Amino acid sequence: MAPGVSGYDLRCPSHKCKIGGVGGVTMRVAVVGGGVVGLAVAWRLAAAGDQVTVYDPAPGSGATGVAAGMLAPVGESRFGEEPMHRLLLAGADRWPAFAAALTEATGHDLGYRDEGTLLVALTDDDLRTVARLADFHRRAGLTVEPLRAADLREREPLLAPRVRGGAFVAQDRQVDPRRLAVALRIAAEKAGAAFVGDPVTRLSDVDGADATVVAAGCGSAVLVPGLPVRPVKGQVLRLRATGDAPPLRHVLRGHAANRSVYVVPRRDGEIVVGATEEERGTDVQVTAGGVLDLLRPAVDLVPGLAEYALVETAAGSRPGTPDNAPIVGRLRAGVLVATGHYRDGVLLAPITADAVAAMVRGEAPPDEFRPFGPDRFPGVST
Amino acid sequence: MAPGVSGYDLRCPSHKCKIGGVGGVTMRVAVVGGGVVGLAVAWRLAAAGDQVTVYDPAPGSGATGVAAGMLAPVGESRFGEEPMHRLLLAGADRWPAFAAALTEATGHDLGYRDEGTLLVALTDDDLRTVARLADFHRRAGLTVEPLRAADLREREPLLAPRVRGGAFVAQDRQVDPRRLAVALRIAAEKAGAAFVGDPVTRLSDVDGADATVVAAGCGSAVLVPGLPVRPVKGQVLRLRATGDAPPLRHVLRGHAANRSVYVVPRRDGEIVVGATEEERGTDVQVTAGGVLDLLRPAVDLVPGLAEYALVETAAGSRPGTPDNAPIVGRLRAGVLVATGHYRDGVLLAPITADAVAAMVRGEAPPDEFRPFGPDRFPGVST
Repeated sequence: MAPGVSGYDLRCPSHKCKIGGVGGVTMRVAVVGGGVVGLAVAWRLAAAGDQVTVYDPAPGSGATGVAAGMLAPVGESRFGEEPMHRLLLAGADRWPAFAAALTEATGHDLGYRDEGTLLVALTDDDLRTVARLADFHRRAGLTVEPLRAADLREREPLLAPRVRGGAFVAQDRQVDPRRLAVALRIAAEKAGAAFVGDPVTRLSDVDGADATVVAAGCGSAVLVPGLPVRPVKGQVLRLRATGDAPPLRHVLRGHAANRSVYVVPRRDGEIVVGATEEERGTDVQVTAGGVLDLLRPAVDLVPGLAEYALVETAAGSRPGTPDNAPIVGRLRAGVLVATGHYRDGVLLAPITADAVAAMVRGEAPPDEFRPFGPDRFPGVST
Repeated sequence: MAPGVSGYDLRCPSHKCKIGGVGGVTMRVAVVGGGVVGLAVAWRLAAAGDQVTVYDPAPGSGATGVAAGMLAPVGESRFGEEPMHRLLLAGADRWPAFAAALTEATGHDLGYRDEGTLLVALTDDDLRTVARLADFHRRAGLTVEPLRAADLREREPLLAPRVRGGAFVAQDRQVDPRRLAVALRIAAEKAGAAFVGDPVTRLSDVDGADATVVAAGCGSAVLVPGLPVRPVKGQVLRLRATGDAPPLRHVLRGHAANRSVYVVPRRDGEIVVGATEEERGTDVQVTAGGVLDLLRPAVDLVPGLAEYALVETAAGSRPGTPDNAPIVGRLRAGVLVATGHYRDGVLLAPITADAVAAMVRGEAPPDEFRPFGPDRFPGVST
């Protein structure tokens, strides 16, 4: 990477002199799990000169494969959790340089877009929800522009006439997680990382590493007894314009009769509609109710979506934790965890990679991770 | 087939002595189109001793593959069309013997069930629709048992508590069209019919037949210039119970806030939810709006369906005609048509096969077909 082009330095920010390359310390690192977090860690370490092996029978096929890729650091589910906000904001800050560096390293289009998102309210009740959310964005230091219904529809003519109002969040961004996973794997391989398709059922299956990073999402609980990671099912739809349907311009974070839904248009014409949050069941089965819960508010907010082709229905399991914050830290000598990212795996992948890169060498991760080590949960086997 | 077992005689009912077998007239018949109508015709003729060749690159893959297979002769879309009623009732009468004969000929389970269906109304408005429909059944000579909400829910405990009422139609039946198509093909082949996978783009592609039967559904208009057959798109869903979800017992013909939907449980646990009727577009693309229009009333009527897996979404084109009645008759010497069955292809397949079997020999079809020849439309190329 040409210095200064992207501003994203793949070496550990605080210890550049110590890691990789000529005169640096080269580590053998096993990364168990090839989702977006594991892949970002692998690229980060391999680019710094470490010998990295990623273990995953199907990289990118877990939560990554069904994620929408909204890079929105402030969500309504996070009201009042200050440490988590700081982490999400810091994670979001990493993205522009990370995306630029990855694009440059691979030549791949990540579907990265930074036009901001629209918060949209269908009813008066929803308008109150959006107002609270907008206020929350402001307190987090983000710029939010309130929009009346007419202004909203001027920006996004496909919105339903009965939409009551909303707001514009300029700093929100998006990336296509499937493209991201492909690019990360290519970048990691280019930097020398190896990929092993054998499943890892015990950490002892991994031989000869100086450090093992458990980044196996929901599967992490099997590898680390006591790790409180549970699957939270999410269903997601992919639509595609048929004929000469006009394109949707903005990412929408919609509220329709107290149901929330996001509608994420990709540049290639695909629209992702997500996502349910279901605590029950460990299956990844698409259900009639899940699809209905997504289509109803999406079509209420954007009636023209009814004409779009429904090209994919999918379900996946997000790795949830008791506080729905990630678990990133040292478990014992030679073993780190980077999991439990719940809905924020894509947003937090770059900063998690930085944290793991530091910790592999026994250094402290970025401050924002301090509250999120595995030691906050009793009973985790170390 | 053992005489008397099914009561369904595969020879032409009115001219048994003349057709097939020892001393009979053996015809070479080309059947263009291997949907449920073409396959029934092929079996009928082959079993009578004719040399039958079916032309279809993918038998059973058109409207047949997405049909629900309700055998309900009286539907709300048919109010006031007396000749069509007579045909549908006569078609339904053929089914018990036809199903028994086909099952016996092949040993295949057709998914044939004769428990009757429930008409179900969600709102007061819907209740008026159901009352009109029940009255219409009675005038057609069918037995309809009105049911109050409590009675309905006793018969079908999965119905929503807010269902207002309905009725039971004892004579309605169902068959699984996919199983039916497989069985018909096997039966036709056992009886000596040949299948050719080459597409037929002109009738002159078919050589050496004494008679050609155009049973190509929506594709018939290409083969017979001027034949007024248009595609009417239908979308349909397939659900399947997950875990220990209780099974739905009855076929439901539901009315929910002025939307109609049918919910057809198969014995193997599959539930078919259908069907949209869309005049616009010739595509067979599943759309967000189509799926929503089916899931919303289905889940409103049977809330437990929300937990069912959505295992398939599909769309197909029914062959509609200006009066939405079939076009069955002689086009010119050696060429017959049997198409335009719209929503009634499965119900009318057996009686259509009888009609074609008669007409192949220049005999009159069953009386009920008299109003439905191609000569009722000016401009059909004969």
